[in-house]
Amino acid sequence: MSDDRLGCAVVGAGGYIGQHFARLLADHPRFAPPLLVAGERSGGKRLADVWQLAEAPPAGLAEERLLRLGPAALARRGVPLVFSALPSGTAGPLERELVRRGVSVFSNAADHRAAPGAPLLVPEVNADHLALARGGRGRGLLVTNPNCSAAGLVVALAPVLGALRPASIHVSTYQALSGAGYPGVPSLAITDNVVPFIRDEEEKVARESSILLGARAGPQVRALRTPIVAHCVRVGTREGHLEAVTVHARRRPSGDALRRAWTTFDPLRALSLATAPHPPVVVRQEPDRPQPLRDRWAGTPARARGMAVTVGRIRWTPPYLRFFALSHNAVRGGAGGSVLNAELALEAGRLPRRPS
Amino acid sequence: MSDDRLGCAVVGAGGYIGQHFARLLADHPRFAPPLLVAGERSGGKRLADVWQLAEAPPAGLAEERLLRLGPAALARRGVPLVFSALPSGTAGPLERELVRRGVSVFSNAADHRAAPGAPLLVPEVNADHLALARGGRGRGLLVTNPNCSAAGLVVALAPVLGALRPASIHVSTYQALSGAGYPGVPSLAITDNVVPFIRDEEEKVARESSILLGARAGPQVRALRTPIVAHCVRVGTREGHLEAVTVHARRRPSGDALRRAWTTFDPLRALSLATAPHPPVVVRQEPDRPQPLRDRWAGTPARARGMAVTVGRIRWTPPYLRFFALSHNAVRGGAGGSVLNAELALEAGRLPRRPS
Amino acid sequence: MSDDRLGCAVVGAGGYIGQHFARLLADHPRFAPPLLVAGERSGGKRLADVWQLAEAPPAGLAEERLLRLGPAALARRGVPLVFSALPSGTAGPLERELVRRGVSVFSNAADHRAAPGAPLLVPEVNADHLALARGGRGRGLLVTNPNCSAAGLVVALAPVLGALRPASIHVSTYQALSGAGYPGVPSLAITDNVVPFIRDEEEKVARESSILLGARAGPQVRALRTPIVAHCVRVGTREGHLEAVTVHARRRPSGDALRRAWTTFDPLRALSLATAPHPPVVVRQEPDRPQPLRDRWAGTPARARGMAVTVGRIRWTPPYLRFFALSHNAVRGGAGGSVLNAELALEAGRLPRRPS
Amino acid sequence: MSDDRLGCAVVGAGGYIGQHFARLLADHPRFAPPLLVAGERSGGKRLADVWQLAEAPPAGLAEERLLRLGPAALARRGVPLVFSALPSGTAGPLERELVRRGVSVFSNAADHRAAPGAPLLVPEVNADHLALARGGRGRGLLVTNPNCSAAGLVVALAPVLGALRPASIHVSTYQALSGAGYPGVPSLAITDNVVPFIRDEEEKVARESSILLGARAGPQVRALRTPIVAHCVRVGTREGHLEAVTVHARRRPSGDALRRAWTTFDPLRALSLATAPHPPVVVRQEPDRPQPLRDRWAGTPARARGMAVTVGRIRWTPPYLRFFALSHNAVRGGAGGSVLNAELALEAGRLPRRPS
Repeated sequence: MSDDRLGCAVVGAGGYIGQHFARLLADHPRFAPPLLVAGERSGGKRLADVWQLAEAPPAGLAEERLLRLGPAALARRGVPLVFSALPSGTAGPLERELVRRGVSVFSNAADHRAAPGAPLLVPEVNADHLALARGGRGRGLLVTNPNCSAAGLVVALAPVLGALRPASIHVSTYQALSGAGYPGVPSLAITDNVVPFIRDEEEKVARESSILLGARAGPQVRALRTPIVAHCVRVGTREGHLEAVTVHARRRPSGDALRRAWTTFDPLRALSLATAPHPPVVVRQEPDRPQPLRDRWAGTPARARGMAVTVGRIRWTPPYLRFFALSHNAVRGGAGGSVLNAELALEAGRLPRRPS
Repeated sequence: MSDDRLGCAVVGAGGYIGQHFARLLADHPRFAPPLLVAGERSGGKRLADVWQLAEAPPAGLAEERLLRLGPAALARRGVPLVFSALPSGTAGPLERELVRRGVSVFSNAADHRAAPGAPLLVPEVNADHLALARGGRGRGLLVTNPNCSAAGLVVALAPVLGALRPASIHVSTYQALSGAGYPGVPSLAITDNVVPFIRDEEEKVARESSILLGARAGPQVRALRTPIVAHCVRVGTREGHLEAVTVHARRRPSGDALRRAWTTFDPLRALSLATAPHPPVVVRQEPDRPQPLRDRWAGTPARARGMAVTVGRIRWTPPYLRFFALSHNAVRGGAGGSVLNAELALEAGRLPRRPS
Repeated sequence: MSDDRLGCAVVGAGGYIGQHFARLLADHPRFAPPLLVAGERSGGKRLADVWQLAEAPPAGLAEERLLRLGPAALARRGVPLVFSALPSGTAGPLERELVRRGVSVFSNAADHRAAPGAPLLVPEVNADHLALARGGRGRGLLVTNPNCSAAGLVVALAPVLGALRPASIHVSTYQALSGAGYPGVPSLAITDNVVPFIRDEEEKVARESSILLGARAGPQVRALRTPIVAHCVRVGTREGHLEAVTVHARRRPSGDALRRAWTTFDPLRALSLATAPHPPVVVRQEPDRPQPLRDRWAGTPARARGMAVTVGRIRWTPPYLRFFALSHNAVRGGAGGSVLNAELALEAGRLPRRPS
Repeated sequence: MSDDRLGCAVVGAGGYIGQHFARLLADHPRFAPPLLVAGERSGGKRLADVWQLAEAPPAGLAEERLLRLGPAALARRGVPLVFSALPSGTAGPLERELVRRGVSVFSNAADHRAAPGAPLLVPEVNADHLALARGGRGRGLLVTNPNCSAAGLVVALAPVLGALRPASIHVSTYQALSGAGYPGVPSLAITDNVVPFIRDEEEKVARESSILLGARAGPQVRALRTPIVAHCVRVGTREGHLEAVTVHARRRPSGDALRRAWTTFDPLRALSLATAPHPPVVVRQEPDRPQPLRDRWAGTPARARGMAVTVGRIRWTPPYLRFFALSHNAVRGGAGGSVLNAELALEAGRLPRRPS
């Protein structure tokens, strides 16, 4: 094709996050419409046939068939870039093989998060960790986005951490159904109910947030040492993770200073990354916001819908700062996070045009 | 044991209907607490570990392990009576083998509904069809209860059919999540949604209702010939199927006569069947009833909770009679239906104390 | 202003339908952004402060204050066109006074539906009834759109009625929460529940559909005489009324003919009405569609989102045609319906630029 | 009457908490079936006509009419005991007048919580505070139960506070719809949503819990000084408030010691209070409990259903103890709490048989 967009593929395209990848990449300015790759369950079907999102499938891809293609075939076809929406466990070996074959992988799976040479990345928070990614000389990059709850949390915290120097951070989540994928949570388990358990989630939130908020130290990350104490709970909303956050602060900045820290935060403003929201944090003044139903799609410009983190109900009663943060689990905390990571890598000159 | 209750087992005890069987049989006056039998997924676990109902598991059975027992083992243990909550497809061969080994089977599965020698039975409606059941001389009985939507429909229609002599019957359902078992309907499929499709359901409602409302003719049933035209829809309620019914009537009885037909209907009043509700049809006068939340557990005495069918919003504008009917899909339309069938068979002297 | 769009106002702008009017009119090509008028409860507040829809308020109107303006003040300001989202009862006298003062009114309220000189209108179905609207010589037009359930029903039926010549039409509804406005249905009334009662709804569906599908006869409408037998039920969805429809047909067209009747139906294609969907009926082939969650916003072009009626699960077993129809209750069945009516009147030269 | 049960009345009997009072008092061993008193909205109607709970109204009271009776009339009728389910604001003056007329009041309203002479009471936690209640010599007692979230929290914390000596207590709530009464939360506000705001709730949880967990000091209470930092959120469940609790501990008892503290806790065991659950804290071992749907009705014996607090998912990673607590907001946190308070007062000889 004559356009100079980078070719790419989505593996795990039949699942909930995979479909968000397809939606985001169907008409991306820098990446070409993706090959859609799936396994036994969805392979061979049209995207429209497996579609689970409430909004209609993207016109350009709806009729595409999901392909059953392994890493070798993808490399052979010259695909330089793969977005991985595979379930954890399945993702690991396949992603490693892709990387060995020179294909760069941006993954939503947990398998390689913060593995050596595979940074955990949220561009607004730790763009400098991209440098930790190994790659080149026949090897693709491997970059991961964090757990869906950690993603929103770190964007909300990053602007104010320095001013607060926390002694501890407490977070309780109100996580949407789509966080469990499809079919995911049985309706009988959640109708008229909430479930105070999501396997491994509290550990991921604590560990991954600490790494994202940590400092690069040579080839490694020195994780934040502040305890992050989490309760993770599933509620009956479709999309959008709400988090109740309390920061036990050591310092006492003014309320104005805190608010300004949030509203002026925009570390990516100088870059032109298509999926980056400006501002990344939307601060709401209403007494009852953020709400999943109303704020899940926050983010401007239009391409960044669902990428902003909404912060509200800020209550600063030193030493405790309380607020709520809301982010779209499948966009900011999933497919959108990885697309933004790839945009950053492309901008940084780290993404070759063909398998290296 | 010294008590003279009939021994029994529940096959498919790990599923939603199986658990309702366990609940109903844990302290039944005529049947002993059941052996709980399950397959690979649940076998070996305690009932409490697989329990899915909102109410707590019955004290006497909660700690019982689900056994992996085949038909031969059940017959060898001398179990004369099996309640089948197996999924359709699996149920067929296993139920046939039990019957061949002299064990009587009362089944909620679709496989043998109205098969030769295996009547489809709702005691208030067609108790006389029990005579169609083959059995004896080394062969167990095989009796089925109908589809969960048909069960409520026929109880609601039986009292008034004669007076109306319908030209056609129209029914639209509002079916609860538990009708699909567990895990059943994914929460993402039904939250803020209704789904106008349940596989084969409309056909079952029409066919099974016609048989239940039909007349015995020698060794067969002459099905009702009135067209039953159904729409079947899943909504996001936990339990209780609501049905909007319109009868296009050929006759024009008075509204009082119709109401009296419903309120005086109690064909089982002379028998003492433990699970039979008296009255079987509860007629409500409020403008906005029946409702799944409030009426699903209708039925007195206490043991018959969930067995009554609630009828309300009766609008008789000849030639169209409109009303709503509500019944508990997993009790009247599932486990309770089969237990009542077995009580009828026992009362009728058709249930031997050991595999025959 | 230099643009030649027609000035307008929305009365009842603080309510759910009023907000949909604001959304549709914020950047309309033929109507200027509306004055927003409200009563005691919302008057004086900004639109953003009373906003109830899930999507954000339209940028151009969000900061506008809702005005407390009576009919006289509206006429004095020279507003030629008012969209009425007032509750029934309140609407009647106010709309009449507006009309007397020369202001044309397009109303969603029930008070004047099919009153003499005030046609009930769905442009795809009975555009010729517009001629019944009195107006001119100092008097504004008064045109109403139907009840939200009737609106979807008649669009779905219109294409096939001629081919079927029905003996009766049966409809059961699955109506969304927003049909009751805000605050509307208490959450405790509907969580894990459905409610088989909506006051006067069944009567409205029957009466209004009969008129819309009727024939103009001089200065009157000869209503369709086919019985329309309705059950109306509230379910727990946010937006989008689903309807299960059975037509008892006198004729037996082929299934292909029926399908073609729906897919080729587009009586407004020659006009350029901004809010008219093309096609007005979307026919879906999937076994489980239409669904409120997925199909409520059907309608192309973009300005006609929520205006198409989706038809699916067509089952033609003569003499019974069964199908499901879904339409957005607050758009096709509410604000969008009235906006389309006004577009038709403007196109027909019936809307003067100032109060007449 | 010949039975020696104490006469009583429920004011505010038409509301959600009032109906739980009616349910609990319909057949109480020490209190006679209550007079049901209501205001303009419900007065004159039968209890059955205003009934909002999912379970059926109590047989003995369903047909009773709600009376419009003021304090003077209640005193004149010789009613010695009133349970108040009035909304805050309305409750204050009316309760004061009752007390002045010698009628004892046990109130669920916020107006007098911890007012001088009107103790805030949860018998398992601070039974000794009953002594703070003024009363006698022509004056009735005035005793209040706390906010619905505080009630569950303090029962869950009381057993382990001594062993932990907390530096701070963090709680995030998942509060049920019924906490807002009826009509309460509009369905459009909460369907596919959670709302991170309940007016004054966080302040109440902190203040009332501190008082309940405080020590009596002469005629006053020395409130607990440990900060209680709360986030209060409404979710879409019908009944049962879930709370995520983190205790930042100063001491490090063993996990066994903590568990034992909970399971052996039963300070009321020696008293025979009809509504007291034994044990008051149910500790669950499953990884995903407590859940509102399954644990809201915890509590033995049968009369204490809904009075136990369920604790689960205990994670003790010093210095942070995390767990979830669940209690029925309208029983333990509402009507049941006040009934238990009255039982304690009766047992303590503080309740005279007639207005004093």
